[in-house]
Amino acid sequence: MSENDTRLVDELTAAARAALPALRVAPSVQKDAALRAFARLLRAEQAALAAANERDLGAVAGETKAFRDRLTLDPERIEGMAAGVEVVAALPDPVGETVTAWRRPNGLEIAQVRVPLGVIGVVYESRPNVTADAAALCLKAGNAVILRGGSEAIATNRAIADFARRALEEASLPPAAIQLVPTTDRAVVKQMLEAQDRIDVIIPRGGPSLLHAIHESARVPVIQHFEGVCHTYVDRAADLAQALAIALNAKTSRPGVCNALETLLVHRDVAAAFLPEMAAAMRARGVELRGCPETRALVPDVVPATERDWDTEYLDLILSVRVVADLGEAIAHVARHSTGLAEAIVTEDRAAARRFAREVDAAAVFVNASTRFTDGGEFGFGAEIGISTNRLHARGPLGVRELTTTKYVVQGDGQVR
Amino acid sequence: MSENDTRLVDELTAAARAALPALRVAPSVQKDAALRAFARLLRAEQAALAAANERDLGAVAGETKAFRDRLTLDPERIEGMAAGVEVVAALPDPVGETVTAWRRPNGLEIAQVRVPLGVIGVVYESRPNVTADAAALCLKAGNAVILRGGSEAIATNRAIADFARRALEEASLPPAAIQLVPTTDRAVVKQMLEAQDRIDVIIPRGGPSLLHAIHESARVPVIQHFEGVCHTYVDRAADLAQALAIALNAKTSRPGVCNALETLLVHRDVAAAFLPEMAAAMRARGVELRGCPETRALVPDVVPATERDWDTEYLDLILSVRVVADLGEAIAHVARHSTGLAEAIVTEDRAAARRFAREVDAAAVFVNASTRFTDGGEFGFGAEIGISTNRLHARGPLGVRELTTTKYVVQGDGQVR
Repeated sequence: MSENDTRLVDELTAAARAALPALRVAPSVQKDAALRAFARLLRAEQAALAAANERDLGAVAGETKAFRDRLTLDPERIEGMAAGVEVVAALPDPVGETVTAWRRPNGLEIAQVRVPLGVIGVVYESRPNVTADAAALCLKAGNAVILRGGSEAIATNRAIADFARRALEEASLPPAAIQLVPTTDRAVVKQMLEAQDRIDVIIPRGGPSLLHAIHESARVPVIQHFEGVCHTYVDRAADLAQALAIALNAKTSRPGVCNALETLLVHRDVAAAFLPEMAAAMRARGVELRGCPETRALVPDVVPATERDWDTEYLDLILSVRVVADLGEAIAHVARHSTGLAEAIVTEDRAAARRFAREVDAAAVFVNASTRFTDGGEFGFGAEIGISTNRLHARGPLGVRELTTTKYVVQGDGQVR
Repeated sequence: MSENDTRLVDELTAAARAALPALRVAPSVQKDAALRAFARLLRAEQAALAAANERDLGAVAGETKAFRDRLTLDPERIEGMAAGVEVVAALPDPVGETVTAWRRPNGLEIAQVRVPLGVIGVVYESRPNVTADAAALCLKAGNAVILRGGSEAIATNRAIADFARRALEEASLPPAAIQLVPTTDRAVVKQMLEAQDRIDVIIPRGGPSLLHAIHESARVPVIQHFEGVCHTYVDRAADLAQALAIALNAKTSRPGVCNALETLLVHRDVAAAFLPEMAAAMRARGVELRGCPETRALVPDVVPATERDWDTEYLDLILSVRVVADLGEAIAHVARHSTGLAEAIVTEDRAAARRFAREVDAAAVFVNASTRFTDGGEFGFGAEIGISTNRLHARGPLGVRELTTTKYVVQGDGQVR
């Protein structure tokens, strides 16, 4: 840790905190004007943005095609980024919302009101659209944000952050509300994670190794977003056609994301009726199956599942399958192997649905729907900054509301205790 | 750190986590039955409890009277403890409460529902009633709790925790839902603070040195409860008689607590009319005044306030006083010196009240009322486990609701993405 790094994080956080009073009282129209100006600049300065992106791509010529593709900004992606910022501008402002309010017997009127959270650190990898998304969401909720993107995207991210800061100035808001860490030195991340009382929360976005490293070393509170080992349980009372459609969607619509299906649990009474058809449909979509002995007895050529399979987030076209004796065994399997993100039951039995929803402990529990709906957009939040597997503060998809805290405003007329 | 300490915390947390599934689904009537049995045992076994308390008192014969008084349980305090547990039993159960629910265009019905937080660690000093209060509040919200009280109260706390566990057994709930750390070894606290993913949150209760030590070293999320350097600002448009009553109440009704007044800010236009009378009334109640030069020019024999005074939580009959030029200067003083707990304005000016409430960033902001109302009981929560100065999860007085998290329950009829 050089003295320069420490000074850099000191400067970034001091500037961010100095911006908070103006952000706290900024009316929605002012914040939304900044967001619309940001979107306009992203479109208008498309050529400059593409040139910055070219510089980043030139420096990673040796990387894989997938890596380079994630990093690439084409006109369509730039338009998507600008449109995303406009979606955030159009969202209702969570700041000032009254969560709950009541009157006490002594006449005091107590209101719990949403206010900005403060200074948010976002540490992320690769996709440059996160720079625009995170900046927009944090600003909407009246927060200052310190962005630390991947080193491979530094030129692109700088260009995007510059547009955001120009937009803030246009709207007469402090540009320090949106800051990008200007170096790729990893020591800066460490300093950010230790900036207790100067950064209010860190939101990491990226792969498991980044997330676990941050979880292990952060002193600043972190909103976690861990793996999703998601299950779907096909109950004895399931509509089997519905169960198949849900399982296929959850496994194959986008296998590389956290809310995709990894393990299918099937009630023994319907295993013979369900598994062969399910296996054929999955295989037709290129899915490899790994099964328990009962599954393998019903479906030919299924690879044996090992204990490790039950705890693996494949993020790929692989599905582990287990036959269970009853609902209780399904719930016990989920309790043991779930990462707490999203779990589903398919059943027409009201009591089974109620029990599963009550006993399964996850950010989102689905009855007769795909776990793929665990998503801020699908929940109707307009945009999301991630999905929390935390138990504190916010759990599940994070929208702008989750980027606020509350304060109590108490009105009296001279009450004393 | 001996191997025994590590094993002890492993055992406590494993037992607590094993109790969670039963707690998660326990109906309110069952939890309330356990709480009422706990209250009954505290009363019925009063003699055994007093004997345990005598053993603790015998071991601290050399301590101050105040220290011994805090530790002492007499029949009145035991009754107060039992009655407090009954108050918690009578509270509405927060578990199962729907926070918000909506229907999506695709027909999905999404409900955000309160569920228990998990395993809560409570680390506290001295007063044995915290053992009963914390156990009752955590159980009410369906959590398992690991209690670590002060070494001076170990026999008393053990007796109280034993009654709680007998009550759990009577109500057919797992006794591991309430556990007391059976040793006074400080290494165990350190282990608790590092038990990430096994303890969900630590709630410390005690003096500043305990709180700051925990804040500095905890890896488990902590709900902070720091000092209260609370201000009351007497605006130009204040009803001065009301301002005096509020200031006297906030300073003198219980000076040793966090929500007591420490610094009085007075608008210059009313300083001459307000300060001499205020000073006389405060002095009549034994309050020492420390003032800025303008205050000292208006009131004889006021000690000069130093820069340090503005940041000091006296917890005593001392009041610092500063004359300010206007509302903006008052808000700026508060922004610089507030610890974010409770702040008040006294004014009849609607615009001034609105500006103060909007711009001042604290867990509770009062208009024309005493900061002493920053309290779970006064807010109507029935009981409190502390007051949070966190920005994440919960801010302000913590009731049973703040001891829960939420999950989303999503009902569909075959929706896929």
